[in-house]
Amino acid sequence: MEDTRKGVSIAARAVARLLRSLSDPPIRIELWNGESLGPPPARAVGTVRIRDARAALRLAADLELEAGDLYTEGRIDLEGDPIAIVREVFKAGSARGFGRLLRPGRLTDWIRRTDSRSSRRNAQHHYDVGNEFYSLWLDERMVYTCAYFPDPEDDLEHAQVAKMEHVCRKLRLRPGEHVIEAGCGWGSLALHMARHHGVTVRAVNVSHEQVVYAREQAEKQGLQDRVEFALDDYRNLAGRCDKFVSVGMLEHVGPENYHTLGAVIDRVLAPHGLGLIHSMGLSQPGRMNRWLEQRIFPNASTPSLRQMMDIFEPRRFAVLDVENLRLHYALTLRHWLSRYDEAWRRIRELVGDRRARAWRLYLAGTAAAFEEGVVHLFQIVFTRERNSRIPWTRAHLHPGDHDALAGRGDARGVA
Amino acid sequence: MEDTRKGVSIAARAVARLLRSLSDPPIRIELWNGESLGPPPARAVGTVRIRDARAALRLAADLELEAGDLYTEGRIDLEGDPIAIVREVFKAGSARGFGRLLRPGRLTDWIRRTDSRSSRRNAQHHYDVGNEFYSLWLDERMVYTCAYFPDPEDDLEHAQVAKMEHVCRKLRLRPGEHVIEAGCGWGSLALHMARHHGVTVRAVNVSHEQVVYAREQAEKQGLQDRVEFALDDYRNLAGRCDKFVSVGMLEHVGPENYHTLGAVIDRVLAPHGLGLIHSMGLSQPGRMNRWLEQRIFPNASTPSLRQMMDIFEPRRFAVLDVENLRLHYALTLRHWLSRYDEAWRRIRELVGDRRARAWRLYLAGTAAAFEEGVVHLFQIVFTRERNSRIPWTRAHLHPGDHDALAGRGDARGVA
Repeated sequence: MEDTRKGVSIAARAVARLLRSLSDPPIRIELWNGESLGPPPARAVGTVRIRDARAALRLAADLELEAGDLYTEGRIDLEGDPIAIVREVFKAGSARGFGRLLRPGRLTDWIRRTDSRSSRRNAQHHYDVGNEFYSLWLDERMVYTCAYFPDPEDDLEHAQVAKMEHVCRKLRLRPGEHVIEAGCGWGSLALHMARHHGVTVRAVNVSHEQVVYAREQAEKQGLQDRVEFALDDYRNLAGRCDKFVSVGMLEHVGPENYHTLGAVIDRVLAPHGLGLIHSMGLSQPGRMNRWLEQRIFPNASTPSLRQMMDIFEPRRFAVLDVENLRLHYALTLRHWLSRYDEAWRRIRELVGDRRARAWRLYLAGTAAAFEEGVVHLFQIVFTRERNSRIPWTRAHLHPGDHDALAGRGDARGVA
Repeated sequence: MEDTRKGVSIAARAVARLLRSLSDPPIRIELWNGESLGPPPARAVGTVRIRDARAALRLAADLELEAGDLYTEGRIDLEGDPIAIVREVFKAGSARGFGRLLRPGRLTDWIRRTDSRSSRRNAQHHYDVGNEFYSLWLDERMVYTCAYFPDPEDDLEHAQVAKMEHVCRKLRLRPGEHVIEAGCGWGSLALHMARHHGVTVRAVNVSHEQVVYAREQAEKQGLQDRVEFALDDYRNLAGRCDKFVSVGMLEHVGPENYHTLGAVIDRVLAPHGLGLIHSMGLSQPGRMNRWLEQRIFPNASTPSLRQMMDIFEPRRFAVLDVENLRLHYALTLRHWLSRYDEAWRRIRELVGDRRARAWRLYLAGTAAAFEEGVVHLFQIVFTRERNSRIPWTRAHLHPGDHDALAGRGDARGVA
């Protein structure tokens, strides 16, 4: 240490200790005073630049929360592939049991607010940033959930359509059926189902901006008579549907409401209906990341499969199919981040430097989490346990298969 | 009532009350004294003949347990399709909340014994009846678990091979890999894997009769150097494997041992290994049927998916795929029962009237339970949560698919 000011020295030591506790990931740290820690540039996946001593102290005190805030404030910078840098943090953490620190398994150490009014506020925080912002880095249909890439080389537009088709096949949509969608984003899936599968859809969402956008799209596509977008909470769903679908809403519902969600589905789903829930998930109950849950997705939470069973088991729904698509979400996020970085100037003009930076870290960090297996993505198909009008095999999900002979690929039961 | 003896009158009233409590299923009941209850033969799916008054009283007192015992003793007979008759009981029970009576949700109201020594005894009770007995109604490979029928018209031999291939594809077997199989039955899957996928297998089983048979098969097929069958408990598994598989053993493990099973898998599975567990399951914790659990499968239990997560979540295994194959088990059981009835004379000679009758009811009752959705069948594929060498899609499970382009169908990760 050449700098003898006490604060700098303490900060540098704290950072060094933190680094060692991470079992020396191949990340280079450059400090405000010109010093550096970690491997030389050639052996590092990237560089973290810490711009002042107080930032280093905050980082050492609470890596999980402060890293994100300091990056947002511009007092930390990442040079190189941000996904690779965050992946190294996850790897190092895992190797040293640091995972416990990054993901304390307590769901209750701050008060979660997921009642109807709070849900609306939570959604506003995230989704009402403005449609233009999202249009700069999502696909042309504004699908803000994990895509499905039949081929990893597929582009994002193709993969989002393939995801919607994958969902429609799992749901065995048939012309004339009625679908209820809980949490419809900008409406892409509802419009796709109505347009390509001849169904009618009632879709609800608590984000005003999204519902306005979705209604405009329905008008433009002449689907306003077959798709209804309502600004409403899933708890208020009524009526009857042949198919129930919810893609990317469960993360906002909260495990404390899974029983309620199950009761809502039980209320609306026809006796021979099928349902699909698509959600991020963890391998055991816990948290994904405190910074993400506090700054990006207020009051969100990521359940384990066991927790998700609270939706199904009390109401005797039988799970028919679970598919883990985590690598597809990792790839989706890489596409989003790449578009985000390309649109960086416009994004900064639009939402300001802080939000632009926060969202960039969220995309990179989430991509890293999916790539490292810290987070998973579950698509669950379910029905009433006694319903036998269910697909005979899953060959229909992959058309062209030799199992799917004409006339038998259809839903059938033994009755 | 023409018969004025008091016992008969009480018994007949008890049966009539029982029938009404079942919301009048279309089952005809014929009593020992020539009386009958229920719809006329033309409107009934079958007839239950009750041979004496005491039988009727026992039936009314505890339908779930006594029906099976009385059938075993020959004091109740079923005329018509026994599967259809049991299905009507399930339907009627469900309509009147009778399901609670048939499946009291208590796992602890008799002491379950699933320690190593008891497990051996439990298996002996069921599997050591003699190989000839099972050979009379299973397929030629002696596969005693749910088959997979790509086409419902497939015969049983084809469907059992298709099931083994389905499992091998889910496990992504590669030549040279080492597989551990827990609960291997008569060895068919282990032999299939070694023969058709070039792997080595160590398979354990606590049934002496089955292990002796499996070893003979290995010798006959010249596979004794590549498949080892050991008379041992899953708790003693050691060594390392690339793939872990267990088909139809979990029902004998008991939920109280799922943590232990998870620890065993954690001990033996390589870092990039895949595992598959295939088990009967319920839509919520409870019991399948007391008679079945006490008389046919001592100390067995059928878990819900939530309970099964006790194997995976404590060890941070990530579930990759769940498939519910209940209609395939229903069809498998119909095949077994049909062969069983064809071999009825020889079966009675071999195991005596009581066991022959008990097993017939077990096959018919279980077929009915799967057809009615009272029981399900889950195949679960899992891996360590951080393992990214996982299949990109499930298209490889249905070869011929357009997704499965050459060279990409293989397991790959993002690393």
